[in-house]
Order: sequence, then structure tokens, then C-alpha cells
Amino acid sequence: MSSQVNDDTKIRRVPTNEELKEFEFIQVLNEDPRTKTANILGKLKSSSEEPKDAILLLEKSHFGNQELPILSKERILQWIATDNNDIYHWYNGLLTKDEKFPDFKVTLIWPATETHIRKYSFQPRFLIRETPHIYETIVKPYIESIPPNRIQWVYNILSKKSESERILLEVEEESTGFILLPDMKWDTVTLENLYLIAIVHRRDIRCIRDLNDSHLPLLKNLRRQILQFVPQKYSGIRSDELRLFVHHLPSYYHFHVHVTHLRNDTIAGGIAIAKAYLLDDIIENLEKFAQDYYKKVTLTYILGENDPLFPQMNDIGARVTVDV
Amino acid sequence: MSSQVNDDTKIRRVPTNEELKEFEFIQVLNEDPRTKTANILGKLKSSSEEPKDAILLLEKSHFGNQELPILSKERILQWIATDNNDIYHWYNGLLTKDEKFPDFKVTLIWPATETHIRKYSFQPRFLIRETPHIYETIVKPYIESIPPNRIQWVYNILSKKSESERILLEVEEESTGFILLPDMKWDTVTLENLYLIAIVHRRDIRCIRDLNDSHLPLLKNLRRQILQFVPQKYSGIRSDELRLFVHHLPSYYHFHVHVTHLRNDTIAGGIAIAKAYLLDDIIENLEKFAQDYYKKVTLTYILGENDPLFPQMNDIGARVTVDV
Repeated sequence: MSSQVNDDTKIRRVPTNEELKEFEFIQVLNEDPRTKTANILGKLKSSSEEPKDAILLLEKSHFGNQELPILSKERILQWIATDNNDIYHWYNGLLTKDEKFPDFKVTLIWPATETHIRKYSFQPRFLIRETPHIYETIVKPYIESIPPNRIQWVYNILSKKSESERILLEVEEESTGFILLPDMKWDTVTLENLYLIAIVHRRDIRCIRDLNDSHLPLLKNLRRQILQFVPQKYSGIRSDELRLFVHHLPSYYHFHVHVTHLRNDTIAGGIAIAKAYLLDDIIENLEKFAQDYYKKVTLTYILGENDPLFPQMNDIGARVTVDV
Repeated sequence: MSSQVNDDTKIRRVPTNEELKEFEFIQVLNEDPRTKTANILGKLKSSSEEPKDAILLLEKSHFGNQELPILSKERILQWIATDNNDIYHWYNGLLTKDEKFPDFKVTLIWPATETHIRKYSFQPRFLIRETPHIYETIVKPYIESIPPNRIQWVYNILSKKSESERILLEVEEESTGFILLPDMKWDTVTLENLYLIAIVHRRDIRCIRDLNDSHLPLLKNLRRQILQFVPQKYSGIRSDELRLFVHHLPSYYHFHVHVTHLRNDTIAGGIAIAKAYLLDDIIENLEKFAQDYYKKVTLTYILGENDPLFPQMNDIGARVTVDV
């Protein structure tokens, strides 16, 4: 075993409380006042070595179920009145200290690499307009350049080489069939956070652009089977509480449909316009307006500066401008 | 002055800290783990009277700018390790108590009425499909039944009887003109939370359903003028950071366009599919696919149980079902 490996082993131990206390703040990478989360970069040293980059992914804790009933009597240490108007009274407040009700949760990444730092940093984002021409000349060649093994994991699911125990529903038919399974983001327990993914068996649809009226049987089959199956499997969920949608750009180029509960808005970006397309709207457009709607349409979406497509999109002038 | 009025005056005073401590919990009305907010109902008594209903609208505080740099050294009282894997280390933690950094902010509504309780309670919501037929027979008559004075405030803005000092831009032209002003939800300072509303001068467009290709000059003028004006007015905002969209159902039936910064996702529901329609997509549909696209299309959206339209929509079978 080389000394390199030894070093590696050493740094991967759990930092002590004294070391944590000495975390040297460098900068805020990103934060979101709405969700009360902040990513910060700093240095953490292990006793014998140079300090290494460390990232803290911080999130304030939610009020707990056991906490709310006793809040006022036992948990609130101090009310600090700030203003009032008629029946409205505003306060800030401090809670008592209790390990049972932590103030925050945090993930420490240590040592952190450049990739981690980029991943958890704010990234400038731009609205771009993907015309059919831009799709053909930039996006489609990009999709075709992605090594096929990048979606080997999808094929492993479809051929049941992996995750087969997680499959909730399989419809085997070649042109309209699919596999339905829980998304990794779902705990599979909290119904109102339900998040499933339906992955189609056929391999010839890379994204929404490839859809035409010949796919209506597939799209309608997905819709019907999912709306039928989910309320049967999870009593307490109604079919009119399910949001079925597709992303463009998707995170991988094999056609799949997202299935979430209406109340699941922990995925705010994921259900926003300029990213998500309702399956019902897709069916409407192909059936009622144009058999090649998604070949002809200009799609508007958000692209981050770090996206591999961004440089070319920028060069060709795809960013939203005053002219339509 | 009647004793009733006296009683009223008495209850509208600020509750004492002792009274707050005696808040009697009844139930959780609504909560959102993502935003760390909870609405709870209880009873609060004023010394001489019967306890009255009181609502607490609680929200955890965000990490502050002054807090993050000193977090580890001065603010974190205790790290509680929960798990670790390779370079990832998870903790819960407690913060030190400091009035400068409150744990939560809260609005107390006291005494609260039934209306307040309903407003802050969870409301069951349903996905419904508004076919052209359902629009004609249920929604349109409903819109026409709304007393015109309900949007008098809009006409007051357009005729500059009110809020005229808030106007940012006016384009006076009768058929393509509009007034642009900040939405009440925007503090008018934080650029990344920018939220403006463009209200058109013409009074003949009630909602997206009324739009056809004859309105393309209006829609394109809105787009062009707004994308030109906002970056001039607020340096630091680019035109490709602006999201222009329309709601259906809107909150009032006079055509208006929402203008927000891409980073403003504090309005998660407001930019979600099945609610928001990108102005660029509306233009695409009218220009490229059908001059009467919004007359023909079936629109899918979320309706709450308390919505005045819900009972009729429910009766006619508009809720999403397995059949398309």
C-alpha cells in the first residue's frame, strides 16, 4: 500500500468537534432564503496536514410534528415584538435548546474537489430559444455525441439487470410499454411527495422533439395506465392529484415521464414553465394542432453557463432577445 | 359608544408575554417542510374575557449574511453527527441563542375569524380539464357574472386615478398599449426578486381564452417593450433573465402579463405548469399552429375545493380521469 493511499485513508476519517470548530470560512457559494438553505465553502484542517477545502450544505430544520403542539408553552424561549396593526401582531423569536429538535441539518463534504465546488455554486442562467434550426444543428448533434454507455443504467432497468425489485408496474408491449418505478428523490412513504418515473421500452425517442402523432398510442397508454395504477397502489391518492410531465431539456435522452403528487412542490424548478411540459398538453398539441408540433415549435428554456450546450447556443445567438 | 365597541377595542391590544405563553394549541392548519412554514390554530385569552381564536403563521429564519462567516466559530453550539460515508458527513446541530439572529418569525392573528382560519388552512386541490365546452358553459358565464366593480381598481390604475406614482412605463396606444408597474409582492429593491405586472389598456380580453391571432401585435409589443425597458431601468438585469407569463385561471379577468426574474422562485406555484403560460409559447401557438389555438385547446389546471367554480366543475365531471 502506497503512502498516497495512506494519506487518502487518513483524510477520509470523521473530523473531530475541535476541527469542526476551526472551519475557516471562505465564501458563500449559493443560498436560498425561501428554503432556508446555504452552501458555504471553507477550509478544514486535519491535525497533521494542510487544511483542505470543505463545503457545508446547510438547511434550517422544519418545525416538527411533536414540536408544534407544545411550541408556545415549552419551545418558545422568547417573543420579540417587532410591529402590530389591528389584529395582526409580528414577532421574531428564539427557541429553547433541545437536541430532540435540532436547529439545522448539514452535510459536510471534506475534502471537497473543484467539481463539488462547481456543483454547489450559483451558476448564471439564461433563457434561450431553441428554434427547430437550432435543435437540428446544435442540440441533436450534441445528443448523438453522448456516449451510449451514459444511459446503460436505463437499459439495465429495462432489461431488469438492476433495480428490478423496485419496479412498481411493467407494461411489456414493445411500442407502448414502459416500466414505472419510484424516483430516487422519493422516500416511497410520504404520499404527498410521491415521485415516480415511467421509462418507455422503445429506444427511438430521445426527447420531446422526436414525438409526433404516431406516438399518441404510447402517450395515451402511459397516461391511462399510470392514472389507473397509482390510485390502486397508493390508496389516498386520486388520479386528479397526479401531475404527469416531461422535461426539455431532459437529464438523459431516453423518453421518460415524471409522475408527481400535486402537493409535491419540493421540486419547484422541475414543474416550472420553460422546463416542464404537461403530458396532457403534449397529447393536445399532437392530436389537435399539428402531427409534427414538436418538430416545428420553438421551445424556450433555461440554460446554465456550465451546461455543455451553452457555448454553442451563445455563439449562435439563441439567448432571448428583444426581437421575436 | 356601545360596550360592544369597547370590547372590540380591548381585544385589539397587544397580548402580553404571559398571555402568549398560555396560547392553547388546537391544530395544525397547514405546513410546508420545504419552506419551513407552519400555520397553527389555538386559543389565546385576554385577562378578563373568554379565550378567542388565534392563528400563528410561523416561519423559520434564513441564515443571515452576517451569520454565515462566523457560523462555525461563534454560532454553532453543538454538532450532532448522524452518519457518514467516504467524504460525506451528516450532522444535526444547535445554534447559540442570540436576539440578533432569531430562530423564527411569526405573525399572530388575534382574534381570528372563520375567514382567517379558512384562508390559512390546507385546501384539497384537484386537477381539472377545461375543455372548450366547459369554458363556454361554466367558466365564461362565471366570468360574466362577476360584478364589474370587482376590477374597478384595475381601471383606476389605467386611468391614473390611483397608484399613478408607481407606474414604471406606459405605452398609450389603444390596442397594443399597457401600463407596467411593480407587483405588490416585490420590495422594488432586490433585483433577483423582480416582479412586475403589465396591464393592457384594452378592456375586451378577459383571459387567455379570448386571445387569437389578431392579438399578436399586442402580445409582441408587450414582449418587445418589456424586454427593452426592464434592463434599461434596472441595470444588472438582462432580457434573457426575464420570465413573461400569463395565468389561467387568472386572479382577475382583465388581461395582464406577469414579469419576473428567473431567480425569483419564491412564487413556485405561480410559474408552474398547469397554471402559468409563457408569453413566448402563446405567441408560438397563435402564430404557428392555430389562429384560434386558445379557443380550441383543452386547458388542464388545479382548482381548490373552495374555488367558486369547483362545485359546477365537479358536477360536470371536469376532474381528471383515466379517459382522455
